[in-house]
Amino acid sequence: MYKLTAPLLLLGATADYADVRYAAGFTAPDPFLFLDDGTQKILLVSMLEYGRALATAGACRVLLARDLPISKAEQRRLSGGAWGLLQLVGRRSVCVSQKFPVALARRLEQKGIRVNVLKTAPYPQREVKTEAEVVAIARVQRAAAASIEMAAQLLHSCTVDRAGFVRCRGKKLTSEMLRTAIEVELVRAQCHPGDSIVASGPMSANPHECGHGPIRAGTPIILDIFPSCKITGYFGDITRTLVKGRAPAALHLMLDAVYRGQRRALQAIRAGVAFRTPCLAVMDYFKRRGFVTEVKDGVARGFIHGLGHGVGLDIHEAPSLSERAEGRLRAGHVVTVEPGLYAPEIGGVRFEDTIVVTSTGWRALAACDVPWEV
Amino acid sequence: MYKLTAPLLLLGATADYADVRYAAGFTAPDPFLFLDDGTQKILLVSMLEYGRALATAGACRVLLARDLPISKAEQRRLSGGAWGLLQLVGRRSVCVSQKFPVALARRLEQKGIRVNVLKTAPYPQREVKTEAEVVAIARVQRAAAASIEMAAQLLHSCTVDRAGFVRCRGKKLTSEMLRTAIEVELVRAQCHPGDSIVASGPMSANPHECGHGPIRAGTPIILDIFPSCKITGYFGDITRTLVKGRAPAALHLMLDAVYRGQRRALQAIRAGVAFRTPCLAVMDYFKRRGFVTEVKDGVARGFIHGLGHGVGLDIHEAPSLSERAEGRLRAGHVVTVEPGLYAPEIGGVRFEDTIVVTSTGWRALAACDVPWEV
Repeated sequence: MYKLTAPLLLLGATADYADVRYAAGFTAPDPFLFLDDGTQKILLVSMLEYGRALATAGACRVLLARDLPISKAEQRRLSGGAWGLLQLVGRRSVCVSQKFPVALARRLEQKGIRVNVLKTAPYPQREVKTEAEVVAIARVQRAAAASIEMAAQLLHSCTVDRAGFVRCRGKKLTSEMLRTAIEVELVRAQCHPGDSIVASGPMSANPHECGHGPIRAGTPIILDIFPSCKITGYFGDITRTLVKGRAPAALHLMLDAVYRGQRRALQAIRAGVAFRTPCLAVMDYFKRRGFVTEVKDGVARGFIHGLGHGVGLDIHEAPSLSERAEGRLRAGHVVTVEPGLYAPEIGGVRFEDTIVVTSTGWRALAACDVPWEV
Repeated sequence: MYKLTAPLLLLGATADYADVRYAAGFTAPDPFLFLDDGTQKILLVSMLEYGRALATAGACRVLLARDLPISKAEQRRLSGGAWGLLQLVGRRSVCVSQKFPVALARRLEQKGIRVNVLKTAPYPQREVKTEAEVVAIARVQRAAAASIEMAAQLLHSCTVDRAGFVRCRGKKLTSEMLRTAIEVELVRAQCHPGDSIVASGPMSANPHECGHGPIRAGTPIILDIFPSCKITGYFGDITRTLVKGRAPAALHLMLDAVYRGQRRALQAIRAGVAFRTPCLAVMDYFKRRGFVTEVKDGVARGFIHGLGHGVGLDIHEAPSLSERAEGRLRAGHVVTVEPGLYAPEIGGVRFEDTIVVTSTGWRALAACDVPWEV
């Protein structure tokens, strides 16, 4: 019987994939190692990945474990491979990301390697995008925007029955049906759909709730679409909140506040501005409009997340545009601007665009002009 | 300018997500903490995830950082939250997975916490599936099999032009078109399509090449489909190799050998058998049929991967059915059986089914009867 000698602590988080993809142009579904010593980049892969690594990771030296100065037994272990790579380049110390697996770090230490955990990201330059990266993100963003425009047209073509349910060709329209229609569009545009959010009614008060069940008229329908390109790996991220029919007064106030809040945030954005400035502008605006952010009696309401995040080879990456973020915007930062307001009894409202920061302001990576009420 | 003081080592690998999902029934796109001390399970989430965690992680206590006995500054750091959780349960030592981030482990150690890295998986019982898990995997597996049957029908309906290209309604059929058709089916079945492989011709000699460009008659078309269910998170995994028209003699030999190789592997499978036995049976069979496995002049050929892997909340999980795997099959293991042969000048052939091991043998989780030649 399996028994813990101490509490088990786990972290839900991604690993180094995106950094390796950025630096090596290669990714794989199984663990593999990548070493960059400033003069050369080496990929250590299995026989299974060898041909593909040679074909796609042009700037890297591609090795198999048997190419390393290590024993047969070590060739079969990830830690043996890591140690072999360091032997090969003649180094006794190594830098690893904060996310590097602790077991692998300890095994290297046991072999006398000094393991330095980086204080920054492995490739901090990932934060500021090149023109080619902006083009890649804009391509996905346009596909995401197009899928939302399609969803708005679909909702427009629906009817509302006496009980207030939205109906599509006679059938009750569900979150699942609308999400499927959106994802079919994304797949046709050569994108991974990701965990698209199509949440309506009170369910939409939880920002990461994917949504399920029938959609009612007069309630918020949050469409948060964040596909990645199958070819480049770059993400896009866009959110619209739609209402079938008329928004009731309380919901209309939220829609208006979030829409105007997003405008205020965008007005504050240009190179040189502190990361937190646009977020503080929105927080201040919501406060003046009477929207309180709080957790009371186990219920969260108000503006319960940060204003935005970087978008690139990770869907959530640096910089963060939150209330307490340190640092300043630079030209080439690609970030989301996504204020939201959440009320458990009504649902949520969020508007999100992905923009590139310029010296004088910003540029949206895709247009998506849909009215709130469809 | 950013400069490394030692080589940078990165690991392409997944983190603790699937284990947290298994134990807590909860997952999120941003880092969050989960503590299991044997008497209670605690989720530490942001305000953004609070409502959803309360609604979906029924068996867990859901906390915000402000609920912990730590300072405001510590509330804002993941390491502060981790330390706070241990303070809350009154423990000075903790168990973490091998994949746990090294930076977080070190910060806990600096605070006087003893960090024990587990030698096994956090929840080794994940390896043997319950009946409900088998049902969940079978559901995805049927969707994956159905998408391959649809692709086979689509290929059947295609013509071949004089240059040998496959044509669909007059247009050259590409990997992209066939993959899109498959993924639309998967999305409609409420699945994440994943990185589906539709690789033809010499391209298919790289097992993880996704494939692109026009498809030619008489060459192998590998369809490797491994979606996950949007609701349960469980994966399925299936591969078929199809040929439009007739397979040339050399390809026919490979198809026949891999098909029969898979039969041999399956004949060897039942509870109590060593993990490596079915793989060794296939290796021996391929050898007797004259297929050599080697890397020569930068080219890998033969049976260049293991026979199979566990399938569950991760697409690749324990147990491994490779040549050197230690341990024995148990009833309830859900594994792939996927021999393959790869020849750079011809391409690859792989047949894969996902099965559940029983005391007397095995049961396929979905039928998928398509002929090689369509």
